[in-house]
Amino acid sequence: MATRALAVLGRGLVPVETPIVRADDTGLTRGDGVFETVHVRYGKPWQLDEHLARMAGSARMLGIALPSADELTGLVETVLTDAAGDEEVAVKIVCTRGPETGRDEPPTVFATMSDVSAAQRRGRRDGVSAVTVSLGVTADVRAGAPWLLGGAKTLSYAVNMAALRYAASVGADDAVLVSIEGSVLGAPTSTVVWAVDGALRTVPVDTGILAGTTVEYLLERAGELGLRAERTRVHVDELVAADEVWLCSSVRGAARVTALDGKPLGERGLTAGVQRILGFPH
Amino acid sequence: MATRALAVLGRGLVPVETPIVRADDTGLTRGDGVFETVHVRYGKPWQLDEHLARMAGSARMLGIALPSADELTGLVETVLTDAAGDEEVAVKIVCTRGPETGRDEPPTVFATMSDVSAAQRRGRRDGVSAVTVSLGVTADVRAGAPWLLGGAKTLSYAVNMAALRYAASVGADDAVLVSIEGSVLGAPTSTVVWAVDGALRTVPVDTGILAGTTVEYLLERAGELGLRAERTRVHVDELVAADEVWLCSSVRGAARVTALDGKPLGERGLTAGVQRILGFPH
Repeated sequence: MATRALAVLGRGLVPVETPIVRADDTGLTRGDGVFETVHVRYGKPWQLDEHLARMAGSARMLGIALPSADELTGLVETVLTDAAGDEEVAVKIVCTRGPETGRDEPPTVFATMSDVSAAQRRGRRDGVSAVTVSLGVTADVRAGAPWLLGGAKTLSYAVNMAALRYAASVGADDAVLVSIEGSVLGAPTSTVVWAVDGALRTVPVDTGILAGTTVEYLLERAGELGLRAERTRVHVDELVAADEVWLCSSVRGAARVTALDGKPLGERGLTAGVQRILGFPH
Repeated sequence: MATRALAVLGRGLVPVETPIVRADDTGLTRGDGVFETVHVRYGKPWQLDEHLARMAGSARMLGIALPSADELTGLVETVLTDAAGDEEVAVKIVCTRGPETGRDEPPTVFATMSDVSAAQRRGRRDGVSAVTVSLGVTADVRAGAPWLLGGAKTLSYAVNMAALRYAASVGADDAVLVSIEGSVLGAPTSTVVWAVDGALRTVPVDTGILAGTTVEYLLERAGELGLRAERTRVHVDELVAADEVWLCSSVRGAARVTALDGKPLGERGLTAGVQRILGFPH
């Protein structure tokens, strides 16, 4: 996604190609920072308060002094200055621990605005194939190990990106991350949701996954699909047998998983309803 | 460590406070890049070729087009322009995947020069206390899972930094990372070495740890201490019973671990010899 606009806290709009981060910023040298990606519809950020609340939680886990929600909301408004007429764009908000100078430095805070990528639109429309990728952890370990930063959305996404490159290398569109027991955790940049036994389900956060803002919104409205909302662990074999499976994120909405590890997954015609709830045309 | 000099590939020396990285550089937004930290003695980088070889391996694992060793050596020489008279400094070399613009972009490559921190000098002199911190993985999993980037020195160090903050929060100087079975893996910014049964030992890289350049150098010279060199897994309980234990890194050299999880570790007077081999005065 090419970046179309950049706003830096305290500076306002800055040309996208202007370097804004120092070589000794620990967000760069250590992946030591937090971020959120927000979907924007006709100039209005969707679920911004929920994203800012999650970002505050991530920052707390890392001990980073995140600016106030009001300041971040203003930053998002600034970066959206020229996007009012666009059907949809994505805004990324980033806050790093700041430069490592030996003195107390404020965090580095900025927001970028980008077009929604063709791949994300395509996933929403046609679904995605996925392969399982082990994160090498047990499903239990991260809840009791705060240093593993389960549930924090940090800038240290190299493994997430490598999992996506691995998926692409074997011909898949995306990855489903699993524990060493085969328990489904999530996906590199989205949350797993599935329908089975009259319920819409997702993985509980005691597995160390990020609490999905889009999934939260969707599960609160599962009744509109005639389904109960449930949070439960799922083995990858059970996921393959589910009625229908989606990868959900703010910008992508819901992309139906068409196949997992080469096995075709169920399709019960629920995707249109899921996307309608999330406000996306199918 | 405050940064004293900065050199950017293709630009030469740049003032340290000049921002050099764009908001959409994936090294920043995704921790998607590689780095090395090199010790410099009286203006001469120590083991630079070994560091550059390891960096090339890291870049291969991430699929990043690292510049040639000659170009990186020139970059290091540039950043050291004003350090010829210093007893010791540290140079960090960074290469990110570059900005995400939708076009093919070259990687972002730079080097910074810093003083060796007081904490590192103190660790070398007085040793360090440590606590064990679980990485939540098995000792075997990373060798067969390239997407977990075991053995790659990436910019995604948020968990390493969080492990160090956790250690500090319980009054320790450093952390020893262990697998869920209690098998020792390494430390957030160094490699674990121990002496026992007439051997100097370290953890094999089939556990997914980074191959330590300093430890490699040390083990090749274990005979000078009258010890064999061995690579073998070790349970944390065995580590506590070892003759002597060190955390080794380029800049720190060898810091003796004085206590692990509150238990005092052995001291057999080997530290002076280890540091002499590494070229540090004790």
